[in-house]
Amino acid sequence: MLQPLYNTSLSLLTDLYQITMAYGYWKSGTAEKEAVFNLYFRKHPFQGGFTIACGLSSVVEYLNAFSFSDDDVQYLGTLTGTDGQPLFDPAFLDYLHTLRFTGDIDAVLEGTVAFPNEPLVRVRGPILQCQLLETPLLTLVNFQSLIATKAARMRLAAQNDTLLEFGLRRAQGIDGGITASRAAYIGGCDATSNVLAGKLYGIPVRGTHAHSWVMSFDSELESFQVYADVLPNNVTLLVDTYDTIQGVKNAIEAGKKLKERGYQFSAIRLDSGDLAYLSIEARKLLDEAGFGETGIVGSNDLDEYLITSLKQQGARINIWGIGTKLVTAYDQPALGGVYKLAAIQNPAGEWEYKLKLSEQAIKISTPGIQQVRRYYNERGFISDMIYNEETPPAGPSTMIDPYDFTRQRRFTESTAFEDLLVPVFRKGQPVYTPPAIQAVRNRVQQQLARLHPSIKRFTNPHAYPVGLEQQLHQLRTDLILKMRQR
Amino acid sequence: MLQPLYNTSLSLLTDLYQITMAYGYWKSGTAEKEAVFNLYFRKHPFQGGFTIACGLSSVVEYLNAFSFSDDDVQYLGTLTGTDGQPLFDPAFLDYLHTLRFTGDIDAVLEGTVAFPNEPLVRVRGPILQCQLLETPLLTLVNFQSLIATKAARMRLAAQNDTLLEFGLRRAQGIDGGITASRAAYIGGCDATSNVLAGKLYGIPVRGTHAHSWVMSFDSELESFQVYADVLPNNVTLLVDTYDTIQGVKNAIEAGKKLKERGYQFSAIRLDSGDLAYLSIEARKLLDEAGFGETGIVGSNDLDEYLITSLKQQGARINIWGIGTKLVTAYDQPALGGVYKLAAIQNPAGEWEYKLKLSEQAIKISTPGIQQVRRYYNERGFISDMIYNEETPPAGPSTMIDPYDFTRQRRFTESTAFEDLLVPVFRKGQPVYTPPAIQAVRNRVQQQLARLHPSIKRFTNPHAYPVGLEQQLHQLRTDLILKMRQR
Repeated sequence: MLQPLYNTSLSLLTDLYQITMAYGYWKSGTAEKEAVFNLYFRKHPFQGGFTIACGLSSVVEYLNAFSFSDDDVQYLGTLTGTDGQPLFDPAFLDYLHTLRFTGDIDAVLEGTVAFPNEPLVRVRGPILQCQLLETPLLTLVNFQSLIATKAARMRLAAQNDTLLEFGLRRAQGIDGGITASRAAYIGGCDATSNVLAGKLYGIPVRGTHAHSWVMSFDSELESFQVYADVLPNNVTLLVDTYDTIQGVKNAIEAGKKLKERGYQFSAIRLDSGDLAYLSIEARKLLDEAGFGETGIVGSNDLDEYLITSLKQQGARINIWGIGTKLVTAYDQPALGGVYKLAAIQNPAGEWEYKLKLSEQAIKISTPGIQQVRRYYNERGFISDMIYNEETPPAGPSTMIDPYDFTRQRRFTESTAFEDLLVPVFRKGQPVYTPPAIQAVRNRVQQQLARLHPSIKRFTNPHAYPVGLEQQLHQLRTDLILKMRQR
Repeated sequence: MLQPLYNTSLSLLTDLYQITMAYGYWKSGTAEKEAVFNLYFRKHPFQGGFTIACGLSSVVEYLNAFSFSDDDVQYLGTLTGTDGQPLFDPAFLDYLHTLRFTGDIDAVLEGTVAFPNEPLVRVRGPILQCQLLETPLLTLVNFQSLIATKAARMRLAAQNDTLLEFGLRRAQGIDGGITASRAAYIGGCDATSNVLAGKLYGIPVRGTHAHSWVMSFDSELESFQVYADVLPNNVTLLVDTYDTIQGVKNAIEAGKKLKERGYQFSAIRLDSGDLAYLSIEARKLLDEAGFGETGIVGSNDLDEYLITSLKQQGARINIWGIGTKLVTAYDQPALGGVYKLAAIQNPAGEWEYKLKLSEQAIKISTPGIQQVRRYYNERGFISDMIYNEETPPAGPSTMIDPYDFTRQRRFTESTAFEDLLVPVFRKGQPVYTPPAIQAVRNRVQQQLARLHPSIKRFTNPHAYPVGLEQQLHQLRTDLILKMRQR
């Protein structure tokens, strides 16, 4: 999805400090030290109970294309420091120029439900390379996971209704719009208004006309009739340009002629006013006129809360158009994903485990070559246990809540599980082919079906249990204590 | 700025309904009707008193490249309607294939302060073309104006301090990040961490190291010393990986060696904890050690309110690193810009004025071929009057507040003014060359200097007076009354 869009090397799509650190490693002879970084988030967005992992296919594309171009290194050569001298040694720029990714990536599949502190992407490789990838990987995964999660919430609210994404005009930049359309589709939207996203990703596109169409005619009825004449197989009429109820009546008039011609009067659209009241009245008028199959699109700054409320009020909307609130994730426009060093090899080839200390318990990272084991039964997912692949659980295992060590769970050997991180790159080579977007979209709904409803509710959701395998918990605790004693 | 980045035609970067409407106009023989649309917003973002117009240079680029490619029309040819038949007649796709923009664009210069209801971009041309441009123009202008405004607010809060934009990892997609870096620089940031934005737009880039650099060494002091050894002309040391005060002391140790070598110890950086307290303590330690010139960078989810509060608390931070809250415009991640039909020519070549009615007064649009006249004196801007170019004010003019017609202002002929919209395209040809980014950035500060402080404050800002010239006000009122009487 990056390749058809971007015309430029994206290897400089990173923070300058990644490159100065890379220089530091290179210059001090530690560039090749093997390291492990985990990309994870600390808190679900939207005060929710789940997050949908999304963005891996972009990560794969990004890594496949990762290479500093001639003008990338030329540009880096122009950067200067406080003394006006170049920041970087030309030999380092030569090194960057030939650099390719040679590490390993393990990641959670796109469309998987994920929880705080679980690595979504794990990067293992020379520390210099791991460091350069921090920013682009976060940019790709943070935003796409955020929007897929928002869309999944909208889908929960809309139940079995049709969900259309309309947000391009309010999106954060061009690919803010295009990427949002893709992630929204994955999260559960049925179609987008964004034609370029449709073209690039094979997402169904939908749309008919705006107020300006109606205003360009002398009367609303004429505008509807002309529209139905010229596009009889795509008739959704926007009825609120002047007076909504009169608009519904005009739409019915146009719909009758359309029906006579043997076409389907798909829907009317309400874009303002009291959507509950107007949709109920419109439904009556449509039904009385024999248009029981004609749908009602509702739009106007909707989100999962308004959709829920409108449904509770008995609104007869069965197609929801959502724009701004979805594509910008309006109530929380960033997922705070982070990328933390978790282990580094010493010259003897042994892992030294690393964590980032903080005064805030939630900000203390977890060391280790982390994998996530998800236990489940026939009713759904039970809980997730993060473990260190160097010390995998053997036999029955105990999982400990890192924020309250008295909360523990034991799993017998017979509990079914799957490990969530799968190999994506090995020694720089891709070993995983991202599935078609439709399969990712299906996965989201399959995953959500296995989550208890209490975890999916919008208000005070139940916290799905995630903990550390006991050996990893011990390792983390020992490290914290050691560091605090310094 | 689009061209170096994107590899694809962006002519499908629009909502499907623009294309179905275009088809409707084409099929009903009205495609060439001359129309005027205005792009404007109804409310300042962030409950503020001003907005910075931004995005015009992207609009120019977009229009220069506007052309449906072979695969664009091929894709449109695959779209089908409710009956499974193609949506579009092949002759229409041929028409699109050869379509170029042939209209006029007038626009407010990038970096200008703008107010609700003032057209930022005015598009005049065949209605089919005007309609196709709605979505991309909104996408480009909404987001860039939003971020430039947010950055200008951060700049006001930071006063004369250095302001660094760090947001890429939390941005909404790749160009959400790149475009945000550009708009943030225009709005008043001094530099970005985003290397690709630096390369593409010539924005200064800044950055040194992260916690992971420190964690990859056995001790913090060693990590600082190695960093200062290898990048002596770019030394900003992040001191909060373990214990901040100890970190400052270690940084001073490394700084002393650096000083001996004749280099400048640029700054330390605080990224967590009580920034007011820690910066005051750090300042004392640095000053005592003879590093009075060494700066203190503060970061950690900062925005204009936190910067103001920290300054009020006496924080000694003089370099502010701002990320998520800036590049996503966190507290209001979308500017609600709209694009409304304002006039259309009848077959006799006369303008028929158009407006969109609404139950909400703020949502009623304004008809006319609008221009904005900004009156000013030596103390700054006085007020803005929107007028219809077909009925320009002659002699002394009266401006009327459309939301309270009893609020009126009179301007004598001697009041100085400038008209804000300048010609950008004429008959499809560009007649305006966007200035260098630095000039746009300077313009923002020049413009803000001419706004009264009461309009720039964050809490309950004074509303800058904007009204309609009396003839335009009369036209609008007449149209509303006529429509309400239907």
